[in-house]
Amino acid sequence: MDETGLIERYFRDLGAVRGDVSVGIGDDAAVLAVPGGVELVATTDTLVEGTHFLPGSAARSIGHRALAVNLSDCAAMGATPAWALLSLTLPLIDESWLSGFALGFGALARAHDVALVGGNLCRGPLSVTVQLTGFVAPGCAVRRSGAQPGDLLCLTGTVGDAAAGLAVRRGELAAIDQQWLCQRFEYPEPRVGLGAQLHGVASACIDISDGVYADLGRLAAASECSARIELEQLPLSAHLTRAIGVLAWQYALQGGEDYELGIAVPPTHWPALQALAARHGTQVTCVGQVVAGDGIELRQEGNQVQFQPEGFDHFSRNQ
Amino acid sequence: MDETGLIERYFRDLGAVRGDVSVGIGDDAAVLAVPGGVELVATTDTLVEGTHFLPGSAARSIGHRALAVNLSDCAAMGATPAWALLSLTLPLIDESWLSGFALGFGALARAHDVALVGGNLCRGPLSVTVQLTGFVAPGCAVRRSGAQPGDLLCLTGTVGDAAAGLAVRRGELAAIDQQWLCQRFEYPEPRVGLGAQLHGVASACIDISDGVYADLGRLAAASECSARIELEQLPLSAHLTRAIGVLAWQYALQGGEDYELGIAVPPTHWPALQALAARHGTQVTCVGQVVAGDGIELRQEGNQVQFQPEGFDHFSRNQ
Repeated sequence: MDETGLIERYFRDLGAVRGDVSVGIGDDAAVLAVPGGVELVATTDTLVEGTHFLPGSAARSIGHRALAVNLSDCAAMGATPAWALLSLTLPLIDESWLSGFALGFGALARAHDVALVGGNLCRGPLSVTVQLTGFVAPGCAVRRSGAQPGDLLCLTGTVGDAAAGLAVRRGELAAIDQQWLCQRFEYPEPRVGLGAQLHGVASACIDISDGVYADLGRLAAASECSARIELEQLPLSAHLTRAIGVLAWQYALQGGEDYELGIAVPPTHWPALQALAARHGTQVTCVGQVVAGDGIELRQEGNQVQFQPEGFDHFSRNQ
Repeated sequence: MDETGLIERYFRDLGAVRGDVSVGIGDDAAVLAVPGGVELVATTDTLVEGTHFLPGSAARSIGHRALAVNLSDCAAMGATPAWALLSLTLPLIDESWLSGFALGFGALARAHDVALVGGNLCRGPLSVTVQLTGFVAPGCAVRRSGAQPGDLLCLTGTVGDAAAGLAVRRGELAAIDQQWLCQRFEYPEPRVGLGAQLHGVASACIDISDGVYADLGRLAAASECSARIELEQLPLSAHLTRAIGVLAWQYALQGGEDYELGIAVPPTHWPALQALAARHGTQVTCVGQVVAGDGIELRQEGNQVQFQPEGFDHFSRNQ
């Protein structure tokens, strides 16, 4: 059973039922109603050494990524981030490590007006959990489930670079542009500004953290539709294509750690989405369409492609 | 350097400065102002196998404690808990473990009307991080820093039992009442109802999680006062006294994991605090006084006692 299945079985209905939970388990973040007409978005994510980053990774990168993955969840809900809590588990106190971690975390927090309001530090195997809370106008959170047949499926930025960067760091890939690819893995740029303005433009949105195949599949499933993806339209960087060649699309589909946004948009809103992306200095690319049905359909030059990705589920692959 | 010192040095001023942060790093929880006149209390705590619980501990107890430690922080701020997020890192999927964990977490969550609204599950060394958000009336959070010389220092329940329960589980202590002591360690009862009514009665409050010495010392330091503790007044259970004998007070002072509340109260409010505790089925005991000065003073039958506790700081003791 994968992470989603386990969460469904053991955790979905575990706590009390409260009327102020607008969106609970199952989206990129929870949406919580506060008296006075405000809604909050709340999310948490953990990075574990050996699972989410390699032993010996730069502390600054770990600090940056621990916050970035949460900022990306917040962006995918159409929210504006505000407050973070940090739980840091360390095998030993290494002040130069802490200083590097703080540098990475702090720069990204200040760039997005996020205050670090609390947390804890304890001893154990290296692991970082960040919890992030943000604001969204009431009723304006962008869910995974709002896509309709006929909507376009779009991606911000380029995808697959981070997976290639990780492969470089693992010593599995040598590339001319390896520095650029590693940067994409180690210092992802969550689409915070763009995400906060998606309401009224996008019909659905998801954070691309486990690869395009898994995440657009989740968006389609939550919307009770199918996702049709045209492989030649995937936004691949020249760096990735140079490093990987004709199989670069596989990195995009099944690699993870991109922290781009997967957006469903009615065709009439496509120009608005393009304008919004341009305003935020991000490219946005149409990679397919939402269609009736279920599952995910991959096409290349008009033909269906059979492909079984390994995915990026933390419990369904060997790590 | 201990946990508090490291947090001060690396994390206090790390993120953005926001006007809506009423209380940031340095209390039991953060206090956050939401437009519309609501304040939220937000806290997070991590339990790591080998640091906070023994390998092989019952999953139900781990689920209970992971939430209880956060409920206790929330109670110490005078807040009412509402929403939890859960990050669970597991070395492998063991469905009977997950089921036990869910049982412990879920029962406590429902008892205190806490909804589990999200989280994540990933692979790695066993560790649980819970983040809890609650409500407090604006300006009514009970801080560590409000105590004044002349205030009484009080404790809910009894202290030291959990440390003795842990010693039993470690095989370091044999006791007739070991089942009861272990229960106090494995299933602490945070003072949620009492905590939520402390505003207007208490001048300061802290969660007793690292032992009475460390935590009342923190309350006194935050209030820029000294804490005078009368050892013979420490509320010790008959079970603890039977198991430990005349040195039971040392378990209370330097043991941890009690999750009782340390409360400073002006003498005129002492009857109100007693009535409040009685209404919530909790005992409350006066153990000393806030006095001018700094540090902590221990007294036994009128004489000063010299005592250097090992404390419970996760970075200042060997574990």
